[in-house]
Amino acid sequence: MSRIDGRTPDQLRSVTIQRGWSKHAEGSVLVSFGDTRVLCTASFSEGVPRWRRGSGEGWVTGEYAMLPRATHSRGERESVRGRIGGRTHEISRLVGRSLRAVVDLKVLGENTVMLDCDVLQADGGTRTAAITGAYVALADAIAWAGRKKLVRHSGKALTGSVAAVSVGIVKGVPLLDLCYEEDVRAETDMNVVCTGDGRFVEVQGTAEGQPFARDELSALLDLAVSGCDQLAVLQMEALER
Amino acid sequence: MSRIDGRTPDQLRSVTIQRGWSKHAEGSVLVSFGDTRVLCTASFSEGVPRWRRGSGEGWVTGEYAMLPRATHSRGERESVRGRIGGRTHEISRLVGRSLRAVVDLKVLGENTVMLDCDVLQADGGTRTAAITGAYVALADAIAWAGRKKLVRHSGKALTGSVAAVSVGIVKGVPLLDLCYEEDVRAETDMNVVCTGDGRFVEVQGTAEGQPFARDELSALLDLAVSGCDQLAVLQMEALER
Amino acid sequence: MSRIDGRTPDQLRSVTIQRGWSKHAEGSVLVSFGDTRVLCTASFSEGVPRWRRGSGEGWVTGEYAMLPRATHSRGERESVRGRIGGRTHEISRLVGRSLRAVVDLKVLGENTVMLDCDVLQADGGTRTAAITGAYVALADAIAWAGRKKLVRHSGKALTGSVAAVSVGIVKGVPLLDLCYEEDVRAETDMNVVCTGDGRFVEVQGTAEGQPFARDELSALLDLAVSGCDQLAVLQMEALER
Amino acid sequence: MSRIDGRTPDQLRSVTIQRGWSKHAEGSVLVSFGDTRVLCTASFSEGVPRWRRGSGEGWVTGEYAMLPRATHSRGERESVRGRIGGRTHEISRLVGRSLRAVVDLKVLGENTVMLDCDVLQADGGTRTAAITGAYVALADAIAWAGRKKLVRHSGKALTGSVAAVSVGIVKGVPLLDLCYEEDVRAETDMNVVCTGDGRFVEVQGTAEGQPFARDELSALLDLAVSGCDQLAVLQMEALER
Amino acid sequence: MSRIDGRTPDQLRSVTIQRGWSKHAEGSVLVSFGDTRVLCTASFSEGVPRWRRGSGEGWVTGEYAMLPRATHSRGERESVRGRIGGRTHEISRLVGRSLRAVVDLKVLGENTVMLDCDVLQADGGTRTAAITGAYVALADAIAWAGRKKLVRHSGKALTGSVAAVSVGIVKGVPLLDLCYEEDVRAETDMNVVCTGDGRFVEVQGTAEGQPFARDELSALLDLAVSGCDQLAVLQMEALER
Amino acid sequence: MSRIDGRTPDQLRSVTIQRGWSKHAEGSVLVSFGDTRVLCTASFSEGVPRWRRGSGEGWVTGEYAMLPRATHSRGERESVRGRIGGRTHEISRLVGRSLRAVVDLKVLGENTVMLDCDVLQADGGTRTAAITGAYVALADAIAWAGRKKLVRHSGKALTGSVAAVSVGIVKGVPLLDLCYEEDVRAETDMNVVCTGDGRFVEVQGTAEGQPFARDELSALLDLAVSGCDQLAVLQMEALER
Repeated sequence: MSRIDGRTPDQLRSVTIQRGWSKHAEGSVLVSFGDTRVLCTASFSEGVPRWRRGSGEGWVTGEYAMLPRATHSRGERESVRGRIGGRTHEISRLVGRSLRAVVDLKVLGENTVMLDCDVLQADGGTRTAAITGAYVALADAIAWAGRKKLVRHSGKALTGSVAAVSVGIVKGVPLLDLCYEEDVRAETDMNVVCTGDGRFVEVQGTAEGQPFARDELSALLDLAVSGCDQLAVLQMEALER
Repeated sequence: MSRIDGRTPDQLRSVTIQRGWSKHAEGSVLVSFGDTRVLCTASFSEGVPRWRRGSGEGWVTGEYAMLPRATHSRGERESVRGRIGGRTHEISRLVGRSLRAVVDLKVLGENTVMLDCDVLQADGGTRTAAITGAYVALADAIAWAGRKKLVRHSGKALTGSVAAVSVGIVKGVPLLDLCYEEDVRAETDMNVVCTGDGRFVEVQGTAEGQPFARDELSALLDLAVSGCDQLAVLQMEALER
Repeated sequence: MSRIDGRTPDQLRSVTIQRGWSKHAEGSVLVSFGDTRVLCTASFSEGVPRWRRGSGEGWVTGEYAMLPRATHSRGERESVRGRIGGRTHEISRLVGRSLRAVVDLKVLGENTVMLDCDVLQADGGTRTAAITGAYVALADAIAWAGRKKLVRHSGKALTGSVAAVSVGIVKGVPLLDLCYEEDVRAETDMNVVCTGDGRFVEVQGTAEGQPFARDELSALLDLAVSGCDQLAVLQMEALER
Repeated sequence: MSRIDGRTPDQLRSVTIQRGWSKHAEGSVLVSFGDTRVLCTASFSEGVPRWRRGSGEGWVTGEYAMLPRATHSRGERESVRGRIGGRTHEISRLVGRSLRAVVDLKVLGENTVMLDCDVLQADGGTRTAAITGAYVALADAIAWAGRKKLVRHSGKALTGSVAAVSVGIVKGVPLLDLCYEEDVRAETDMNVVCTGDGRFVEVQGTAEGQPFARDELSALLDLAVSGCDQLAVLQMEALER
Repeated sequence: MSRIDGRTPDQLRSVTIQRGWSKHAEGSVLVSFGDTRVLCTASFSEGVPRWRRGSGEGWVTGEYAMLPRATHSRGERESVRGRIGGRTHEISRLVGRSLRAVVDLKVLGENTVMLDCDVLQADGGTRTAAITGAYVALADAIAWAGRKKLVRHSGKALTGSVAAVSVGIVKGVPLLDLCYEEDVRAETDMNVVCTGDGRFVEVQGTAEGQPFARDELSALLDLAVSGCDQLAVLQMEALER
Repeated sequence: MSRIDGRTPDQLRSVTIQRGWSKHAEGSVLVSFGDTRVLCTASFSEGVPRWRRGSGEGWVTGEYAMLPRATHSRGERESVRGRIGGRTHEISRLVGRSLRAVVDLKVLGENTVMLDCDVLQADGGTRTAAITGAYVALADAIAWAGRKKLVRHSGKALTGSVAAVSVGIVKGVPLLDLCYEEDVRAETDMNVVCTGDGRFVEVQGTAEGQPFARDELSALLDLAVSGCDQLAVLQMEALER
């Protein structure tokens, strides 16, 4: 039984990772997971936020946002409304935590990398595409800082790679990398962030309809780990180009 | 090897659930998990938000907040700052989703229950105490609405109970229901929301330091399920008093 | 002729002052005037706001707020609305001014005490309960600072005590310490803040319906002074426990 | 012993009330108390705020603000800061309450009068000048509405007049109508709002330094009543011109 | 004497207009003027803002924004700051006015088109690229509405085309379509919006350094008109593809 | 053919420039263009904004606002709404840029002049009256700073004078200095800011209805230059009084 777009349950959408998309940023990636398209820029700056000064350690953080017409119907701009919504806050924090999991902040030194993930087009899995793309932008920004002698042992600043994927149960079947149509039908929805060596950085599972059982959770985790494995390979290939 | 406060790794803190704490609310509970104290009030109101009108279904949502001096050092009020922080947003959404998981919104009819969870004193696990207490306040509010003939089959509005607990790995040992001192030292921190029959509503695991392996995740889930089981019993006892 | 709750016109409600309610704050009091319950915490911190630096004097200020369901029907959170209402602003300023009236800011030195007064349950007289409770929390915080050697002559930092009570005219009769039901019916409503030696710190009288005459004002002031006298005794007893 | 500006203790500053200052407003007054200059406009509009619809009664409310350079040193605009300060809120509410005290809202019918009081130049007593001027603007707006047949018995919409004055104790001497220089030196500061027949609408006394005794309060009230009497005459003369 | 990037003074940068860039929007264009890249989406919706209901006429408006790292150094997000800056406001209004100049709002009927112009990469002339691209997106959205029978005589909804270009004087030489490097050095900076038939919709000239003389103004207008002519051709070609 | 108010097409309204209107400000002007009345205050302060410190240069900036009832129907206060509107932003920026065009910021030294332009009554042309009046207030503030020895060569701080006027095409006829009635009927509306020697600082033309042709633009510029010439004379006369 095939999926809406013809994939098998354990198949990722077509994933592309285009580096150097932006002329100004120290690292920049246009990542797509199917029709989901996210522009990830990494901005390297010397210095750290006030609360971290003098610690000798750096800081990596993220901000996630959607263009108003990235979605099927237009959403009001958060700048116009004057406040950031809960979902935006939540994902921005997730992006920052996920990336910090693979950075040695001591090696980074008192420097900051801001990862801006702006969704240009949304079709499900925007946060997982954002994290996956942001890792590549981060790697480029750190390499840039190494070349500029701003980070001494820049080759050791990253302790591994990180990628993310969504999984969910639709009509009883565990599926990898949900598109929007699948996502709205999922009974359970999970976002998993893994390091390149297959360990977990974040596991966020939510029962949208019925609560889920332990074996369903296990099946989803299996799918997610295999998806992240594939994404780690794609990230490595992109960075080698 | 015992914990900071003398507990065994799989032991909850002393939990109390005091119903009817507030004179005005349709349901109100002062819940404590050790020194963490949360006032949960359930406000029942006829009608639903605009986007839900005419659906025949009700709505259950939550708002979480901390008093400024609930914590060790005073935090600025979000009302004074003029915006709600990311953490507050995130937990408020979690409370709402968790409670909705056990409500039959059709039976509730076009009525709304708002669950306000205000942390009076914080010592770790405030979101899990909030969810656990809010369930009891919600049950009281629905029973009240049944008595007032505002909900017809109020006995069927709740499809089960829901409780939450935190688990984490401290110095390599999986622990149940972390207090603040343990929480800040945890390498991995997980919040788990379960129904009374042991299924999962939410699983949120975060690697604070090192990424975590599949077997660590399993050990944490085991602990969490057993903790939620105990909380479900305490909730039931409180509701029978 | 007796009142709604059986009191005589010049009788306070049952008043309780429970010290040490919170584990973190330097001073904390749960005060109740009948069903009105306010949690007052005093947070002592070294240093003063920027505009006061180098003056050698300290600062004492207050913030007042209500939990959303402290009242009969739920009020929207000011943090969610994104702005503080006029009433909240007004009472916060009143709390700060009232407490400063009995503090020798030179003796306090360049330290700040923030008094947070959060209404957990409202039944009239929340601002007067807040001031009355905040004084006790402040006294505890200053004593704490004395023990910690943060304030040298801490015994002289307070020049007296301060308490507050509401009075009003209901159906032509001047009444002391109005509960909510009386408050909404009052033609004239007055809040009076007095020092322990019977002098005035604040007098705020408002004609809700008809303007009031000089002799009515006098009768209300008499009642208020006697109410504050009784509260001063209760404060002293609480501090001696 | 004379005052800074040569007045006797019980003497008002030179007061002028200039009607019809603005071409657009239904009532408009430029009022000055010495160098304090406030532009008061009364905007009459049909209809009432949502919460009052169907009541058959009208609404009268006020907004007070200061131009940024009305004061000795420039203050930041509240519109630029994005929020209204506590003092502004407090005075706006006072203006509204004071004016409503002399309006028969049933006679007004479902119409609204907004009183905008903008301080063009400040030299103490801005809120009392605002109230005194706003009354005259309100009277003009109601007369306008009567001529336009928007209020039926417009002659009965006002039940009396209202005026306000500040009083205070400076170096032990009770003084009427403080200018800024006196105001900053006052030990006690009181604003009193009276009807034309000498009754009280608002009494707001604050001990700036030492708490004040009952006889001091009495002396201040005497001064304030005599000041309001004089202002009532000036209001009447202005309305007869 | 050639320019920084080798162009002649009256030469546009390389301009590309890529239609159908976004899957969801009724019209969408990725426009580039050299390295300046703006994503313009046109969102068609039935109905008009409240103040326009019942008029029988439609509404066309715009919102302009920059991604945080569109520029050389990262700018703070306006959503995070909680308010829109003056420059953003100004350009958003300009976009809306410019497009409305070529729309027959009666033919559009009570429908709204929102033009979102998000700058993905900035290198001078972002507002002129935004207007030029937005026109093409608008044309596509109106054609879509015609096919969907939402606008009856959709072929007559546009009364002409509109495009915009910047001009400026750098070291005394009038230049067309300034890139960022030129823009910061310009003594006079002008943005001109023209219809396809060469008339003016907006002329905004600003002396950055020295005030400019009438003949300089004339030379700039000449350049701008020729630039807009060329852009009108490119727009037409894009719409014919 | 005469205009609504009897003027010829090239005639200014009656213009008055009243200096020293405010007791506190270093420069203050009440300017009127017919019934448009703007209070312009210049606040001189030592020091410059953070981003300009150490540059040796000063800063001149402006803020424009309208009193709520300056207009025919009352507008909501921007302070109450919590944000500044686009129009206000736009005009504030225009005022600042226009005045800076005639200031030698090096001569000013590290000092700031803030020009507050508050519209007390609006009848068209408020921004042009604001700029024209603000120049005179600025000149007074700089002279004040010279007398106080805060600016060394204060006589050289102004490189010229600046004034502004609106022009527009109504029923095909180019008119100078539009009043409100004319402004709402104008097909094209232009604001022009000129130096006293007849050069341009700002030219902002907008087609309200039909786009305008080059010869119409020329006719409007001619009118505007002649209007600014007359205003420059009036400014000089005011400064000589």
